[in-house]
Amino acid sequence: MTSNIVLSNVEYKVVGKRPIRHDGVDKVTGKAQYGADIRLPGHLHGKVLRSPHAHARIRSIDTSKAEAHPGVLAVATSKDLAPVPDMLAEIGEEAVLSLKYLSNNVLAGDKALYKGHAVAAVAADNPHVAEEALKLIDVDYEVLPPVTNSEDAMSPDAPILHEHMTTASFDDRFPKQTNIASYQQLVLGDIEEGFAQADVVVEREFRTKTVHQGYIEPQSATASWSHDGRLTIWNSSQNPFGIRDNVARILGISSSKIKLVPMEIGGGFGGKLAAYLEPVAAVLSRKTGHPVKVSMSRADVLEATGPTSGSYMKAKIGATRDGKIIATEAYLAFEAGAYPGSPIGGATACMTTPYDIPNVQLDGYDVVTNKPKTAAYRAPGAPLGCFAVEILVDELAEKLEIDPLELRLRNAAEEGTRRADGTLNPVIGAVEVMEAVKAHPHYNASLTGKNQGRGLAVGFWRNNSGPSCAVANVNPDGTVMLVEGSVDIGGSRVVIAQQLAEVLGIPVEDVFPEVVDTDTIGYTSLTAGSGVAFKTGWAAYEAGQDIRRQLVERAALLWETEPENVEYVDGALQHKSDAELRMTFKELAPRLNDTGGPVVGRGNVNPRGAGGSFTATLVDVEVDPETGKVQVLRCTVFQDAGKAIHPSYVEGQMQGGTVQGIGWAINEEYVMGNNGELLNSSLLDYRMMTSLDLPMIDTVIVEVANPGHPFGIRGVGEASIVPPMGAVANAIHHATGVQVAGLPLNPGVLQSAISG
Amino acid sequence: MTSNIVLSNVEYKVVGKRPIRHDGVDKVTGKAQYGADIRLPGHLHGKVLRSPHAHARIRSIDTSKAEAHPGVLAVATSKDLAPVPDMLAEIGEEAVLSLKYLSNNVLAGDKALYKGHAVAAVAADNPHVAEEALKLIDVDYEVLPPVTNSEDAMSPDAPILHEHMTTASFDDRFPKQTNIASYQQLVLGDIEEGFAQADVVVEREFRTKTVHQGYIEPQSATASWSHDGRLTIWNSSQNPFGIRDNVARILGISSSKIKLVPMEIGGGFGGKLAAYLEPVAAVLSRKTGHPVKVSMSRADVLEATGPTSGSYMKAKIGATRDGKIIATEAYLAFEAGAYPGSPIGGATACMTTPYDIPNVQLDGYDVVTNKPKTAAYRAPGAPLGCFAVEILVDELAEKLEIDPLELRLRNAAEEGTRRADGTLNPVIGAVEVMEAVKAHPHYNASLTGKNQGRGLAVGFWRNNSGPSCAVANVNPDGTVMLVEGSVDIGGSRVVIAQQLAEVLGIPVEDVFPEVVDTDTIGYTSLTAGSGVAFKTGWAAYEAGQDIRRQLVERAALLWETEPENVEYVDGALQHKSDAELRMTFKELAPRLNDTGGPVVGRGNVNPRGAGGSFTATLVDVEVDPETGKVQVLRCTVFQDAGKAIHPSYVEGQMQGGTVQGIGWAINEEYVMGNNGELLNSSLLDYRMMTSLDLPMIDTVIVEVANPGHPFGIRGVGEASIVPPMGAVANAIHHATGVQVAGLPLNPGVLQSAISG
Repeated sequence: MTSNIVLSNVEYKVVGKRPIRHDGVDKVTGKAQYGADIRLPGHLHGKVLRSPHAHARIRSIDTSKAEAHPGVLAVATSKDLAPVPDMLAEIGEEAVLSLKYLSNNVLAGDKALYKGHAVAAVAADNPHVAEEALKLIDVDYEVLPPVTNSEDAMSPDAPILHEHMTTASFDDRFPKQTNIASYQQLVLGDIEEGFAQADVVVEREFRTKTVHQGYIEPQSATASWSHDGRLTIWNSSQNPFGIRDNVARILGISSSKIKLVPMEIGGGFGGKLAAYLEPVAAVLSRKTGHPVKVSMSRADVLEATGPTSGSYMKAKIGATRDGKIIATEAYLAFEAGAYPGSPIGGATACMTTPYDIPNVQLDGYDVVTNKPKTAAYRAPGAPLGCFAVEILVDELAEKLEIDPLELRLRNAAEEGTRRADGTLNPVIGAVEVMEAVKAHPHYNASLTGKNQGRGLAVGFWRNNSGPSCAVANVNPDGTVMLVEGSVDIGGSRVVIAQQLAEVLGIPVEDVFPEVVDTDTIGYTSLTAGSGVAFKTGWAAYEAGQDIRRQLVERAALLWETEPENVEYVDGALQHKSDAELRMTFKELAPRLNDTGGPVVGRGNVNPRGAGGSFTATLVDVEVDPETGKVQVLRCTVFQDAGKAIHPSYVEGQMQGGTVQGIGWAINEEYVMGNNGELLNSSLLDYRMMTSLDLPMIDTVIVEVANPGHPFGIRGVGEASIVPPMGAVANAIHHATGVQVAGLPLNPGVLQSAISG
Repeated sequence: MTSNIVLSNVEYKVVGKRPIRHDGVDKVTGKAQYGADIRLPGHLHGKVLRSPHAHARIRSIDTSKAEAHPGVLAVATSKDLAPVPDMLAEIGEEAVLSLKYLSNNVLAGDKALYKGHAVAAVAADNPHVAEEALKLIDVDYEVLPPVTNSEDAMSPDAPILHEHMTTASFDDRFPKQTNIASYQQLVLGDIEEGFAQADVVVEREFRTKTVHQGYIEPQSATASWSHDGRLTIWNSSQNPFGIRDNVARILGISSSKIKLVPMEIGGGFGGKLAAYLEPVAAVLSRKTGHPVKVSMSRADVLEATGPTSGSYMKAKIGATRDGKIIATEAYLAFEAGAYPGSPIGGATACMTTPYDIPNVQLDGYDVVTNKPKTAAYRAPGAPLGCFAVEILVDELAEKLEIDPLELRLRNAAEEGTRRADGTLNPVIGAVEVMEAVKAHPHYNASLTGKNQGRGLAVGFWRNNSGPSCAVANVNPDGTVMLVEGSVDIGGSRVVIAQQLAEVLGIPVEDVFPEVVDTDTIGYTSLTAGSGVAFKTGWAAYEAGQDIRRQLVERAALLWETEPENVEYVDGALQHKSDAELRMTFKELAPRLNDTGGPVVGRGNVNPRGAGGSFTATLVDVEVDPETGKVQVLRCTVFQDAGKAIHPSYVEGQMQGGTVQGIGWAINEEYVMGNNGELLNSSLLDYRMMTSLDLPMIDTVIVEVANPGHPFGIRGVGEASIVPPMGAVANAIHHATGVQVAGLPLNPGVLQSAISG
């Protein structure tokens, strides 16, 4: 791997370096404890009964035989969850619907909406008894026809998933039942006028399949309900506070009655933001008085946790003869799965953002289908929108006979240009990323073999923020305990610790980060949206400043002077007018207890100013014309990190996102049977990229500092998954001439396209 | 039980009330997890080999046979601990000696100094194998004669425990080997002049036996050493940070490499301040790569953890004819056990403090003996000194023909009178406590039967403070998570929570206290010295003030005004000049994330101003003249709490300390065999008081607010154990005429004294 960092801004002592992560040894030696590793004395085993039908009305559930089994301690159904207020009386109220969806996805209410939908659960003293007892539960299903893609679901004669869902919410002229959960539109300029001015117009439709995040660790939740109504949950998630709050809503208790203890996370990518097993384990624990553990199998994960949307997209781009993109129109219908919530908003917000386009119209439909409710997946929505746009931009370049990168640079968004949502771009790195591509040896190297092609795509992800807290305790030995609520997926412990260490001017090895439970740290929003290094880093920055202020006061006390005569420089206290009065952080630390007590710094923030990331993928492929198999020969990914706090982990994120994007491009898909069942619910059949399938992914970190963060961070976890599908599609097109019409571009699809 | 509170000062809303403790349900239902309840996957079982000799040189330890046992994974001896610097080269250096004592008590070095002294340890995959393997360790002992009480140990021909210990440290005229570890003296006025002015002098000598705290939960420690050198320890202790730091010293690693996770505590009373098993478990974990758990049996607890000192005491008091005590002299020799550190300082500091005595001389000797090293026990030292003084004060009253309470009141210490250590009394409650006795129905009731007597004694304990931290996180639902480092023995979770709730003006049920590990909260000193309610309450008070300041800022932001226009009154934000602008804490809480982020309050303190507690025990007994058995008929305890934050738990502490004191008075003792072995190492033979042995102990809380604390707290955990032995002795004397010469006053002792 070659790694370059361009446009670095400020020289720091700890930030920007590559220390060993604090949790590294535990994770590589197996000491780290993941979701299923918690074992409480006397815990019971929970198993979930799942619907064998993709669409069915549940007439009744008879649990009596299961309950009579001597090894069974409790059976749970949706009746054990908090009652959802009457839909007829309160229909249309967003809060009621949202609770109904949330609750029914955990344990089905009147309908099972996908194969694998949880219907009931059993707690027993051993897992085999629990498994057996599931067969004793009689569910009376009225099987209904399923619909598993958005086009079919939008057709007039489609089976309706939710009887209360009508077109009234977005078109009240002739309200009728529908599977369209919502509609949204972004309009900039005048789309008709734009296309009227265009000299060249390209237009194409695309169909893509459902794909899953493919995290290696299946969900597991353990719950222990105390006799006084306090509930403790151990799980592996990206969202301890959010899941705490949602479990509280589902159970109808106050969120402060719940302590969620986050375990280590074996991958999430957005797929571990939602509660699945937690409320079930909680109900079983409440009923039995014992701790209850419930874990998913791999098939459960693929069939019953949220993948991201399959889609139907139609897009159209117009440009003037000199290569100025003047109009872009798109129609997007995303599968939400069983309940509303596809990432259509992410797609429309990001798909045209790399470019300065005066006339844009983007129409998005969120469509329910008989598949598991979709969940977030790395830059949710953006990869699909980008895929459509980037294929058309390449086609436009071909028609205009302009180099594809040159065309993109000519239209690149800059500070002050307007986005499709009407907002003005702040300081962004679109041009810098594209210039980094242009300057890279990969871009300037020749392809050498037959059936080879090079593809480029650029992409954008907005990155998020949210509330976050950090508390930093100074130890008498001059080390610092850093307490945080952001669970660590990609190395954030060390990245947050680096920011605190930088503020204090101490080595990052002297900072011990600790991710704690929801009782122990202030409200901290999810580990997602590429926001942790940004927001929790900021909280740590504030905690560090709080410590510095207190240390200045302590030094002033010891030197019998006023705090304003003391400053904190390079990890030391310094008297401003007496050079001899100097104490390092390590020298002062042992004296704190006797000068007023321990020093604790706190940072609690909800920062604005999250900065978006631009990114580009450059990929060389060779396509076997006989089999249609795509071999990736070389791939380089460019990304604006703002500031790379720990470049190794930024590179890791860039490589990881790119690998997932290539998998999405050429391999991964939910293969659905006629009855709405998933036919490939194992990782042998749901085929993800492995290190054996790909060359090392080269990375180029671009650093256009985000002025909205103390260290210039933008966020790095997601952007890299946005362009790979477009880049691979463009490379395949250049290698084969095939016009790409969807995903995945697997051997079967390509072979038949090539053979015509 | 009748309960009275007199002299209450301020009316609070939460402080002074009796809410249900947050950890109550878990503790009574068995959900609470104590030291031995932690079970890590793959943990090994450690067992400790203990010396069968009370005094022996260890010539060698051969562990090879044990190591060769197929089930044994590691054997540990003192060689596995950090080397203690060369004693010859550095003798006299306090730090070296202190480390040597600390380390050698955990695993014996060149000598075993008491029966039960840990000599080696084994880790095996099951406890029976570990137990068996202990027998395969060959220890070559040179058995030496033991000495097990301070008088024998101070005799010229006594066996010497520590070869380096000489009289040079306190008498350098003729330095010679000794068992006297240290000598201390308090002098006030002129003792000879004082006795010259006395009209009446009483003098007596006393011998008391070793007693144990008798906590119900034996010690247990589990350690897991990570491959990167981070060590996690789970145990039940009163002193997570102190044990962390001492384990670090014993192992020779930095304290910040250790995380100590405190479990619930099944009693401590000072006996769970020291490290015993933790370093052993840590070494075995380091050697094996597995978590290792080591637990004590009851016999281990009695033989090898610190009880409190047996003593030899001689005291003399002189008074004028009109009842003014004018001189007090005492000679105290306390058994330290195997290593220095008896509570001689606590005895001399407290024994004369209830009284205003112009001439005092107190000589104290700390004497090592072949018994387990003593540990703290509830008001360490004070009960012994008080026992001697209070018997003599009663004898003085008898001789002067003054009512014993009247004599005490006539000499009571007050604000501004001088203590034996020369300091002036601050605001104290000695007179108030004695007046409360005088006013109580018990004091004014008549004894009705034969062989009955009433005894009174008063006592003093100084109470301690120390560094402490609290962090309080405001939840969006208006509840508050209170994070603290003080482990909870006697209900301190709720007591700290009450103080925070009072500051915030919210119900204590909305505060959720959480005791966390040493990585997660700032340095917090031990749960001992009756200091938790005082110091951690103060930290919570500061955290509450920190929250109030931030809430005022948020309200100002929402009302578009300056913070100085907003005040926090009765749990609500109030605009000072617009009565309509008002928001309760609960109303503002959900709006915090969007007005700048979560609100977290921090309090980190090391408060001065801890206030001492005066206390009195009034007890009626009946002594069976034939058997010498003492039956306690009625007992009332009076104590100045300063402010009783939660009166029920103050009463509980008063009752508990009194019961332990009565046990010490009439039953408990270490019965030692000729070879220095403990003959009664079980709770059947080491007989503590149970609820069946005693009447309900009545309590009277006196409240003389401590001006050195925001709520006036003094501390309540220890004082009540100080006077019971003196009170019981005086009652027995009044019932039988026996002159008490020591403890315990068991049937054998009394029967032979009565029968003459």
